[in-house]
Amino acid sequence: MLIVGERINTSRMIKGEAVIENAVVNRDAAFIADLARKQFDAGATYIDINAGTLTKGEPEALEWLTRVVQDAVETPICFDTPNPEALSRALAAYNTDRGQPLINSITAETTRWADVLPFIIKYKAKVIALAMDDTGIAQDPAIRLSIARKLVNDLTDAGVALDNIYVDPLTFPIGTGSDVGVSMLDILNKITTEFPGVHTIAGISNISHGMPARKLLNQAMTVLALGKGLDAGIVDPNDAYLMALILAAEALLGRDDYCMNYITKSREGAFEGL
Amino acid sequence: MLIVGERINTSRMIKGEAVIENAVVNRDAAFIADLARKQFDAGATYIDINAGTLTKGEPEALEWLTRVVQDAVETPICFDTPNPEALSRALAAYNTDRGQPLINSITAETTRWADVLPFIIKYKAKVIALAMDDTGIAQDPAIRLSIARKLVNDLTDAGVALDNIYVDPLTFPIGTGSDVGVSMLDILNKITTEFPGVHTIAGISNISHGMPARKLLNQAMTVLALGKGLDAGIVDPNDAYLMALILAAEALLGRDDYCMNYITKSREGAFEGL
Repeated sequence: MLIVGERINTSRMIKGEAVIENAVVNRDAAFIADLARKQFDAGATYIDINAGTLTKGEPEALEWLTRVVQDAVETPICFDTPNPEALSRALAAYNTDRGQPLINSITAETTRWADVLPFIIKYKAKVIALAMDDTGIAQDPAIRLSIARKLVNDLTDAGVALDNIYVDPLTFPIGTGSDVGVSMLDILNKITTEFPGVHTIAGISNISHGMPARKLLNQAMTVLALGKGLDAGIVDPNDAYLMALILAAEALLGRDDYCMNYITKSREGAFEGL
Repeated sequence: MLIVGERINTSRMIKGEAVIENAVVNRDAAFIADLARKQFDAGATYIDINAGTLTKGEPEALEWLTRVVQDAVETPICFDTPNPEALSRALAAYNTDRGQPLINSITAETTRWADVLPFIIKYKAKVIALAMDDTGIAQDPAIRLSIARKLVNDLTDAGVALDNIYVDPLTFPIGTGSDVGVSMLDILNKITTEFPGVHTIAGISNISHGMPARKLLNQAMTVLALGKGLDAGIVDPNDAYLMALILAAEALLGRDDYCMNYITKSREGAFEGL
């Protein structure tokens, strides 16, 4: 599974404090580099960077984050913004030796599509395709599915390889309706069945928004989504229990031949204390 | 989810010692009652009793276990034996005030079918139907599926209500082949789709036999199986993390309206320390 580490995001609050935003505003490189390294050490395959809460200076901040993160770790970067100026500056600063960039995200909204598509083409980037359009985010899973379908078709028509597309069905908080988990799993299942070769991704943590014991819900949802073919997640790689359950689920789903990765990780002590 | 507590089983070894078997042989009622109570307190809805390793005296032992367990806790009992004499003595001693007995298990084997069916009818019992016949346990999931189908049809023909049937697709250790998890999930999915109203059950722990970090595999497999419609499990209810993930998965799968059970358990402190 592709693990996109979600922790460098200015909207994340830690005990009610905008710790990440403050670090970005103050250009605290040591703090950000440490967050990147911790995620890398825990198994992140991409590091997401998001400075979206900065109403002024997002482009400069995203460029700075790009430099700090790529100096700290060897993983490629996931550029998390709809802002074309921020994408432009950050991608120009990006060292492609780190690997193919991932753009988070394009949608079927007219403006966003026009703004983001050129960067996907120019940088031969991987891209997260969010199932929403100019009408907003539909509660109705059938509408989200049809938008996802349109995005896959339009992206491949524009020359983006299926293997570079990560469809995100959008994760609603389970507190907003007992059916939103089932709907999301159903969309994942339909997308992977309908478009063999396309990837799926989800920002799983949103499922538990507003609920107690969030980690358990995030963990269970990740395993359920893996069962429906999910092969990438925007998650917290420093949740060791989550990472262990992902390895277990991959072994059980036949995505880890002879369970070698699971057994190796166990021998290396990755599951100690869990 | 119906939780069948698996811990009172004479084949269970604890640190290489046949602790349960010794307790049964020595008629250590306090030890067994404690095991029953711990499982009940942790949320077991049935307590499984199995004295199958006793080559002599299984019927007397199962009768004794029945009396000890029903004196200790209020849950109904799952009678885990293919031995008709053991079933006869244990069921005769069973206090039906505890609830409908669960018989573990019938198969499509000629002798076992003839031996066990009369008890299901006589005691209006729930029954676990294991997908195996006189040819043994098939590795091929298509064969297991067709045996499961035959069992459901034969049981309903014999007058057993669909709601009293728990189909067990049989759990193979993942160490025996990278595809056994996927096969089992596929059988579960097909059974629940083909026979709406029938239940499914699995002895999940067998998936991790011979592997390191068994609990993680058991937990991930339980969540994956819940995603395919599993509604009962023979599990260790004293694995608090497993029980918490089950509650989380049920909330996510729309089986817990407004997540009320999840939220209540969280408030009661069930997730503390996880």
